[in-house]
Amino acid sequence: MSKRALKTKPMNAFYAQSGGVTAVINASAAGVIEAAMKTKLINKVYAGRHGIVGALTEDLIDVSKESRATIKGLRYTPAGAFGSARYKLKSLEQDRAKYERLIEVFKAHDIGYFFYNGGNDSMDTANKVSQIGDQLGHKVVCIGVPKTVDNDLPHTDCCPGFGSVAKYVAVSTREAALDVASMAKTSTKVFVMEVMGRHAGWIAAAGGLAGKGPRQAPHIILFPEIAFDKDAFLAKVKQCVTDYSYCVIVVSEGAHYADGKFLADAGTKDSFGHTQLGGVGPVVANMVREAHGYKYHWAVADYLQRAARHIASKTDVLQAYAMGKAAVELAVKGYDAVMPTIVRKKSKPYKWEVGHVKLSDVANVEKMVPRDYITEDGFGITEKCRAYLEPLIAGEDYPPFKNGLPDYVQIKGVAVKKKLNTEFKP
Amino acid sequence: MSKRALKTKPMNAFYAQSGGVTAVINASAAGVIEAAMKTKLINKVYAGRHGIVGALTEDLIDVSKESRATIKGLRYTPAGAFGSARYKLKSLEQDRAKYERLIEVFKAHDIGYFFYNGGNDSMDTANKVSQIGDQLGHKVVCIGVPKTVDNDLPHTDCCPGFGSVAKYVAVSTREAALDVASMAKTSTKVFVMEVMGRHAGWIAAAGGLAGKGPRQAPHIILFPEIAFDKDAFLAKVKQCVTDYSYCVIVVSEGAHYADGKFLADAGTKDSFGHTQLGGVGPVVANMVREAHGYKYHWAVADYLQRAARHIASKTDVLQAYAMGKAAVELAVKGYDAVMPTIVRKKSKPYKWEVGHVKLSDVANVEKMVPRDYITEDGFGITEKCRAYLEPLIAGEDYPPFKNGLPDYVQIKGVAVKKKLNTEFKP
Repeated sequence: MSKRALKTKPMNAFYAQSGGVTAVINASAAGVIEAAMKTKLINKVYAGRHGIVGALTEDLIDVSKESRATIKGLRYTPAGAFGSARYKLKSLEQDRAKYERLIEVFKAHDIGYFFYNGGNDSMDTANKVSQIGDQLGHKVVCIGVPKTVDNDLPHTDCCPGFGSVAKYVAVSTREAALDVASMAKTSTKVFVMEVMGRHAGWIAAAGGLAGKGPRQAPHIILFPEIAFDKDAFLAKVKQCVTDYSYCVIVVSEGAHYADGKFLADAGTKDSFGHTQLGGVGPVVANMVREAHGYKYHWAVADYLQRAARHIASKTDVLQAYAMGKAAVELAVKGYDAVMPTIVRKKSKPYKWEVGHVKLSDVANVEKMVPRDYITEDGFGITEKCRAYLEPLIAGEDYPPFKNGLPDYVQIKGVAVKKKLNTEFKP
Repeated sequence: MSKRALKTKPMNAFYAQSGGVTAVINASAAGVIEAAMKTKLINKVYAGRHGIVGALTEDLIDVSKESRATIKGLRYTPAGAFGSARYKLKSLEQDRAKYERLIEVFKAHDIGYFFYNGGNDSMDTANKVSQIGDQLGHKVVCIGVPKTVDNDLPHTDCCPGFGSVAKYVAVSTREAALDVASMAKTSTKVFVMEVMGRHAGWIAAAGGLAGKGPRQAPHIILFPEIAFDKDAFLAKVKQCVTDYSYCVIVVSEGAHYADGKFLADAGTKDSFGHTQLGGVGPVVANMVREAHGYKYHWAVADYLQRAARHIASKTDVLQAYAMGKAAVELAVKGYDAVMPTIVRKKSKPYKWEVGHVKLSDVANVEKMVPRDYITEDGFGITEKCRAYLEPLIAGEDYPPFKNGLPDYVQIKGVAVKKKLNTEFKP
C-alpha cells in the first residue's frame, strides 16, 4: 500500500535535486518548501548540497535560513539552486552501506520526510529508501517529485522541465528558420538544430511546433524512435531545397542507425586521430554537404535549452510548482513511496489536475514518443502529437530583469551543524 | 559634399536588406517604410526580394500592398522579411555592368532613393551607386542603414542587431552557467559557449556581462583580438575548476593562434579523412578534456543568437527603428551618400541621439574591441568595456505570442510589374 498511518510527531524534511537540471526544477523546490512551511507535521526543510551526495556526506542546507524572497525567487530561477548530482544508488543489496548511511543521517537529523526531485532513477532510489527505512526502524516517508526534460516518465501527462525545453526549441527553430529563409537565395540553404533526448524524441518532436504544413520549418525531424535512413533523409533534404529553397532539420542527439549506432558516433576524429567532439548536428550537416554541396549552418543548443528560464513555458512553471506542493500534501495525507502526477482532463483548452502513482510503477520505465505521433515517413509530427504538445508550451512567465539580464536568485546555503562524527566517501 | 539640392519631384524608394540578418533588421525596415509614408517626396517603397539581387533581376516587392499591421509587425519580427543576400559588388571598374543595371532598373521604376540596410560592404556599395547614378544622369540619393551583429562599423556608438545578440549571449551564458554550477560536483565541470564574430570580439565580450568578479561565469572569454595562448588558457581553466569547482568559457568563432590560424581549423576530420565540421566550441572543449580530463559540455548558438527576437534588447529595437527612420529623414533633408549613426551622449543613464557620417568614411573599415576593453590577461572584459556594453542590452521588448510561440509576421511580397524586358544573371 502506498498509504499508511500518519506520523504524529513533527519531523524534519529532506529535499534533494537529482540528475540533469531544468529551467523549473527550482519551482518544484519552491513548491515543496512553501507547502512544508504550511504544515505542522514538518519542522524544518533541509536540502542536500548537491543532491543525495549532500545527504551521504551530511552536508545539509538549512532552508529556514533563506529569506522568503529567495524562496519565492526559486520559482523563476533555472538550474539546481541547491546543487544536483548524477549519482545513482544501485540495488539495496549492492549499495546497502549507502542506504544505511542515508538512514543514519536522516535519523541523526530527525528527518522523517524525503522529497526526491528527479527522473526514473531517482524514483527508484526514493522507493528503496522508503523500504530500507522501514527495515532499519526509522520510517521515512518518501515522495518523488517528477523532473526531466526528456519527458520520459510514465503515468504522468508530462514531466516538469519538458514544457520549457519544448518551448525553447520550438521558438528557436521558428526564429532560426526565418533567418535561413532570408539567406537561402545566395547563402545558407540548410540549417541543422541539435536538441537533447538520447532515448526519447519528445524534445525533437517539440521542434515540430515551430511550423505547420509541409512548407513551414522544420521540414525534417530526426527521432531516436525511428532508425535513420540516410538515403531517404538526403532525398528529403534535396526535395525541400528544390521546393521551398531551404531546409530546416531538427535532430535528436539520440538519432541512430538501424543497428543502434548513434549518428553522433560517426567517427569524427581530431588531428591526433582521437575519436571525439561529438555532436550529431555537425555530422548531419556534413552529410548534407557531401551529398548535395549545399551551404549549411548548424546549432547545438546543449545546456542553453534546459536552462532557458527566460523563455519558460508558463504551464510548465505552474506544473513544476504544483508537483512540489502536491508531494508535501501527499506526505501529509499519509502517502508513502508515491509520486504526484499530472493528469490531463482535456487538451483544448488544456485542463489538468494532480494525481499520483506508486514509485514502483515509475521506477526505470521510459515513455517513448508513440509511433502514431510521428508521420508515416518518420520525419515529422502528426496532428495527434501536436495536440498533445501544444498546451505544454502555452504561456510565458518572464523572470524579473535587472540591467538587461534576468535577476535570478542565489541561496545562502547555510550548512546544518553536523551531528555524526563519521566520514563517508560517496 | 554629402548634402545636395533637394529633389523636387516625388519619386519611388528602393529598400534592400544585405548580408547576415539580425533580430532587428526588420525594425529598421519598418522605420524606413513608415517614415517614407510620411514624406511627400517619396511615392512608393519597393523592396528588393533577396536584397540587391532583387534590384538586379528586377524582382521588386511592392511594399504598399502590405497591410499596416504587417509593417508594424516587422518591428518585432526577426530575420530579413524581404530576403537578404550575401552579394558583394566590387569596384565600379570591375562590376560596372552590375552598377549600370541597377541604375537601369531604378530609372525604369522611377526610383530616386536607395536605402541599403547592411554592414561595411553594403555601405561601400551604396556609396558607389550614388556615384554611378550621377555619372549616368539618373541621380539616386543613397543612404545606408547600419546593421550588423558584429558591431564593427566605425563612427557609430553601436550597430543595430548587436545589442540583441549581446543580450542573448549574456542571458544564455548566465543561464547555462547556473546549470553547470549545479552539475559540477559529480558531472560537467567545463562549459564552452561558441558565439559569432569572426574578426571582432564584440559578441564574445557581451558574454562577459553574464557575471561580475572572478568567481562568476564566464571565467574565460576568448577574443579574436587576442592571440590564443594554449598553455595560459589551460592553466586558467584548471585554476577555475580548482577554485570555483567549474569553468565557463565563451569563445568567439574567430579565436586564433598567433600565426593567424583559426582554432576552428584545428584539423577535425571525419571518418573519411575530410577536414571539416568546424566549430571552435568543440575544439576548445576537447582541448580541455585532453589536458585535464574534465567532463564538459559545449553549445554552438549559431543562427539562434542573431534570430532571437524573443529576447531582443529594447534599446537595440529602438535604435534599429530610429536608424531606418533617420535614413529617410536625411534623404528628405537633401543628404546623400551618408549613413545615420548612434551618438552616445552619456552611459549612465544611457543617452544617445542620431548623427550621420559619410558612407566613404564607413565603407570597409572594421571597429575591433580596443585593448583596454580586455583585461590584462586577455581573458575577460574591463569595467570600461562593461560600461560601454551594459546600456546596449537594456530593456526587454517581447513580441506578441500565440499558442506559446512568437506570432511573427510574414509579408505577402507582391511583385512590382516588370518594365524591362532584359534578363540579368546576377
